[in-house]
Amino acid sequence: MDHATDRHELEVLSLEECLTLLGSRPLGRLAYVDRGAPVIVPVNHVVDGRTVVFRALQGAKTEALLLGRPVAFQVDDHDPARSVGWSVLVQGTAEPVDDAETRRLVAELDSWAAPTAMRSMVVRLRPDEVHGRRLRRPAS
Amino acid sequence: MDHATDRHELEVLSLEECLTLLGSRPLGRLAYVDRGAPVIVPVNHVVDGRTVVFRALQGAKTEALLLGRPVAFQVDDHDPARSVGWSVLVQGTAEPVDDAETRRLVAELDSWAAPTAMRSMVVRLRPDEVHGRRLRRPAS
Repeated sequence: MDHATDRHELEVLSLEECLTLLGSRPLGRLAYVDRGAPVIVPVNHVVDGRTVVFRALQGAKTEALLLGRPVAFQVDDHDPARSVGWSVLVQGTAEPVDDAETRRLVAELDSWAAPTAMRSMVVRLRPDEVHGRRLRRPAS
Repeated sequence: MDHATDRHELEVLSLEECLTLLGSRPLGRLAYVDRGAPVIVPVNHVVDGRTVVFRALQGAKTEALLLGRPVAFQVDDHDPARSVGWSVLVQGTAEPVDDAETRRLVAELDSWAAPTAMRSMVVRLRPDEVHGRRLRRPAS
């Protein structure tokens, strides 16, 4: 199947491909804006339907910088030896999650930013946009 | 040697450790702010002294979103099986580079976002802040 390419000559991935790739890695990077400047932190995540769910440390800072605010989440993979790779970017708004089922979903998450022992909250990123690009096609 | 830990109980890395780790991976993630929302893109980079240098596609968008603007650059590594990992975040301002020596430095870069064939510019991220954290200590 032919894929469209963008102006960087990267293959444009479909939403389904993006969601599959997002869910294929345990660790992604969350970006938010703090006083006009971007911040990037690694977070462990799960894909739940078309949303991305992760844990964040509970507190005023999380609430001020994440909830109801535009955030981005990105996952990539790159093999320089084979010159192949992909990157998926999700942009949307973060919202708190309080249903028991989702909390169970992330309870097992290995967590980078918010160890289970600490007071954490579950956050859902509801995408406005999902973009995925693949760098060249594997030969196989 | 004992290291300080932060409130997430992650080990706090020194500037020297951060620069060494930054240079140990070919691919990092650049974040910038576009109309109030963060965007994350993978970029290949080199560490030059205390700065991070990478290529970006030449054009009005790059100039408007990167140059003279607050940006962030992040590199991490994570081994969930061993529960070890690290993440380094550089925050600062991006500036164009026009000296021949630095252009040569990045000319060999495998480039994700801006293939060599395209008109690209070299950008230097001059850090205001560099933060590094290590998740637990390897047993060895």
